[in-house]
Amino acid sequence: MSTDRHASRRSKLVQLIRKSGVSAMLVTNPRNVTYLTGFTGEDSYLLIGPGQLLIISDSRFETQLKDECPDIAVEIRTARALMPEFLANLLPKLSLKSIGVESTSLVASVRDLLVEKLKPVEVVSQPGMTEELRMIKDPDEIAELRLAVRQAERGFDIMRSLIVPSQTEREAAHELEHGMRRFGALRAAFEPIIAVGDRAALPHYRAGLRRFDEAGFTLVDWGAVSSKGYHSDLTRVLVTSKLPPKLHHVYGVVLKAQQAGIAAIRPGARCQDVDAAARKVIDQAGFGKYFGHGLGHGIGLEIHEGPRLSPISTDELKPGMTVTVEPGIYLPGVGGVRIEDDILVTRDGHEVLSSVPKDEPITIM
Amino acid sequence: MSTDRHASRRSKLVQLIRKSGVSAMLVTNPRNVTYLTGFTGEDSYLLIGPGQLLIISDSRFETQLKDECPDIAVEIRTARALMPEFLANLLPKLSLKSIGVESTSLVASVRDLLVEKLKPVEVVSQPGMTEELRMIKDPDEIAELRLAVRQAERGFDIMRSLIVPSQTEREAAHELEHGMRRFGALRAAFEPIIAVGDRAALPHYRAGLRRFDEAGFTLVDWGAVSSKGYHSDLTRVLVTSKLPPKLHHVYGVVLKAQQAGIAAIRPGARCQDVDAAARKVIDQAGFGKYFGHGLGHGIGLEIHEGPRLSPISTDELKPGMTVTVEPGIYLPGVGGVRIEDDILVTRDGHEVLSSVPKDEPITIM
Repeated sequence: MSTDRHASRRSKLVQLIRKSGVSAMLVTNPRNVTYLTGFTGEDSYLLIGPGQLLIISDSRFETQLKDECPDIAVEIRTARALMPEFLANLLPKLSLKSIGVESTSLVASVRDLLVEKLKPVEVVSQPGMTEELRMIKDPDEIAELRLAVRQAERGFDIMRSLIVPSQTEREAAHELEHGMRRFGALRAAFEPIIAVGDRAALPHYRAGLRRFDEAGFTLVDWGAVSSKGYHSDLTRVLVTSKLPPKLHHVYGVVLKAQQAGIAAIRPGARCQDVDAAARKVIDQAGFGKYFGHGLGHGIGLEIHEGPRLSPISTDELKPGMTVTVEPGIYLPGVGGVRIEDDILVTRDGHEVLSSVPKDEPITIM
Repeated sequence: MSTDRHASRRSKLVQLIRKSGVSAMLVTNPRNVTYLTGFTGEDSYLLIGPGQLLIISDSRFETQLKDECPDIAVEIRTARALMPEFLANLLPKLSLKSIGVESTSLVASVRDLLVEKLKPVEVVSQPGMTEELRMIKDPDEIAELRLAVRQAERGFDIMRSLIVPSQTEREAAHELEHGMRRFGALRAAFEPIIAVGDRAALPHYRAGLRRFDEAGFTLVDWGAVSSKGYHSDLTRVLVTSKLPPKLHHVYGVVLKAQQAGIAAIRPGARCQDVDAAARKVIDQAGFGKYFGHGLGHGIGLEIHEGPRLSPISTDELKPGMTVTVEPGIYLPGVGGVRIEDDILVTRDGHEVLSSVPKDEPITIM
């Protein structure tokens, strides 16, 4: 439902549009359209600027648009009028000089068509304008993120209780998604990573055909999408028989690093300093070269969004940002440990939204 | 696993590249990379041309690349070297004059960076080259499509057997995906459409909070993704108590239209004629204005690919193509009927890959 909340987001965007100098923005990224209007369908563009507000869609979404954003004007194109041609006919009526497009999500050939068809209106690439607003979550969004975390945690409880030694990673991944959906999640936030034994050393492994009894431990990285489309993202290590002593030591280092990273989160902190606070613990323990990725990322309508917590990030934390903190140490051929929670930046510090125990790896079976 | 099959696909592409006049192609669409190499990961580009064959990836995928395509040279970039910069350093060693990019899937800002960084190598937009090859399925792909159809059908059987009157569309959608996964599907081919009563009149509805007992019938549109990434796509109408007489009549019209469309499928048939064969039945029954979409689309590594069966399609059918045939009639406020099967074009006609009964709507409960 389009609400005052959406109207307030739109007026912030219109301020940015004024500053940028373009007459209006053509918002094409479906997640940005959802953020600004409440409409959850696809293939629909939002034209927005000072004095301009219009959704361009097609007949499949007519009813849904009336339900989800009745206060916004809609133009319905027919199946035979492709979007660029339709816009070319529409724009002269609006007397715009230039129009901004979202070049970091728009496909090149569509921008080419827009540049050609919209002449004499100038098409200007304006990356990241709505994405910048989306970094700061408002209370509705924070409530949805709490829900997505809760759904992930309930699903994890179910999956954990159902593990048997002969089960494969992929079977467990399916139980996990099924479990999250029982608690109202739309789907998993991404294909869960369930990595038995030394597969846990591969940060981008998904879930394959290894059985739980092929090693003594398993890494699980998972999340849920709430019904309004917000993503959670968690990681824990499960011990199904035993953790090699080396990884037990590593677990303690990663946990300390994660706690140091979380402790550094507060308004005004530079994201690279938060990354450094955690990285320092891992470096000092002698595992620096086994932590090859950034410390974390923003979560919201997408699973990866701003701000980034990494050594090269130029972002600064502000109240309302929500980020993952997920240091890891990966020992090739042995295994890996990553511990990940979802953190909200508050006015005076932070709040950890997720609550799965982590003082020790989780022992099951 | 990269095989002779992949090598044969690559040599066909190299022939197209020679014809196009570019020195090499930079394949960025992950599904195209999978098709040409067997590699199933992401964020990896394939550079291919006469005398050129190289995957550019990052350390997350090093092990997976060795497993899945050990015969292809790999360059691993570090996390700090972004892909365009890395390519800029790499290309001078290969003495290319121009490089083709996949403009219909590449994001505009990435192409901008490539154009800037790769100078003096000219970046040329070359849409659809690998997609053209992908339209004709080889025996390995046809076997995978059969598997995806079978997984969809087994999952549907489970879902159907579990329906209770108080269940919501969304709960049933989750049971359906869970069921398909039990038979080895990686996931649902798309968020299933489960539309109770008049919601079936919305061709793009997904699955919401309606309960089965809120109307007498439900439309289900679903598919599975096989473990190698191939998609099936089916639609049936379920009758949970009764179908309004008007829709019963409509069901007969749609079924005849679908049969006429399928009967028109053979090598050499023009796709617009196949569409017309089905559309004519619906037009003559007086429902032409209630069938607002094309008759079908290709299926394979993506859920929608070439060829298109529509009034404006310029494609022609060839042996090895696999398409959906899915006419529909949608009566606003009443409901809708769509019947969809997956069809393989054979040397002398066609084979219907799917086998869920359709002579009548499926009665349950």
